[in-house]
Amino acid sequence: MPRIAEARQPAEPTSAEQKDRYRRILRAASKLGAEHGLERMQMNDVAKEAGVAIATLYRYFPSKTDLFVGVLHSQIQWLSSSGEGVVTAAPAGERAAAVAEVLIGAGRGMLARPQLATAMLQANNAAQLQGGREYTEANAAFHNVLIRALGVEEPGDEDYRMVRIMEQTWYGVLVSVLNGVIDADQADDDIRLASQLLLGPRYDGSAA
Amino acid sequence: MPRIAEARQPAEPTSAEQKDRYRRILRAASKLGAEHGLERMQMNDVAKEAGVAIATLYRYFPSKTDLFVGVLHSQIQWLSSSGEGVVTAAPAGERAAAVAEVLIGAGRGMLARPQLATAMLQANNAAQLQGGREYTEANAAFHNVLIRALGVEEPGDEDYRMVRIMEQTWYGVLVSVLNGVIDADQADDDIRLASQLLLGPRYDGSAA
Repeated sequence: MPRIAEARQPAEPTSAEQKDRYRRILRAASKLGAEHGLERMQMNDVAKEAGVAIATLYRYFPSKTDLFVGVLHSQIQWLSSSGEGVVTAAPAGERAAAVAEVLIGAGRGMLARPQLATAMLQANNAAQLQGGREYTEANAAFHNVLIRALGVEEPGDEDYRMVRIMEQTWYGVLVSVLNGVIDADQADDDIRLASQLLLGPRYDGSAA
Repeated sequence: MPRIAEARQPAEPTSAEQKDRYRRILRAASKLGAEHGLERMQMNDVAKEAGVAIATLYRYFPSKTDLFVGVLHSQIQWLSSSGEGVVTAAPAGERAAAVAEVLIGAGRGMLARPQLATAMLQANNAAQLQGGREYTEANAAFHNVLIRALGVEEPGDEDYRMVRIMEQTWYGVLVSVLNGVIDADQADDDIRLASQLLLGPRYDGSAA
């Protein structure tokens, strides 16, 4: 893979046709990433599966990191928009539980395809290190889904901090499941307990 | 690197001379891992730096994963034994804070050499996936340091669970620092807050 391609800014799809190609690429990457993981998946195969030229693929996603951050981003956007029904402000007393359920749902969705999940987390870590725009947007979108579940109308620094700590806990739990240290049911229970303890006091007024 | 070496069981140092070579290898891996990270560090260079034959290195550490899990393990053992002074049972009311300080200390130690920290976490994840003995021992030792700080004399399942959730949170926070999402001071504050919320109610009887 030419180094120069990795440093280039990814293009944005604008026309309907471009958006369609873009979506086909993300679908192909999800499928092949789930089968092969980040390292063994080939960009050539993604282009073939998506039915686009390899140059088109690189124009939108200059590297595998960009590609899997793109897949993660699209999953979060889906979570965020389908959330009109699911992720709305919970009533007081059930806000910590609402955040837990969003995280459990997102976690279950990822764990259904463990190789893809690992690829997305690897890519997200790499993108964070590089400070990419895509990463920042994806992360902000995810935090906003959680803020919405919490029912905070005008979130302040402390709200974003609490959501970040909860997300970091969820991330640690998710890695433990991917590594086989705990199973998915245990993870669900742990996320519920952690959310209750971390968010309950502030958002549900629950004493310990 | 021959694949067969990766699958072999690592040898244990027994004689004083073997233990000395073993320690020299871990020191060399720490130094070179801190400079180059896991991928770019060469096993040959570790053997050279440690002054041992390459066959000796592979006998104790059949792969880089084994080697960096070994470094992590030795750091935890150091934390555990030096802990006679530092990590003792905290008085009631300060137990969550005590756990936070252990985690902050361990985190600061790791963040002082970010490339080595990333290498150890990468290796630990890989070892967990393979279910290695070394990993299990290192993790159990770390959990016991935290249990000791909590002052739990006869830990039960729920104690190990709480310690595991706290460790997962710490892990998520640590990855955020390594990725540049938050800085080390913010991480310390977040670990203190998370520990207070997760462990305070059960171990310090603190209401929210």
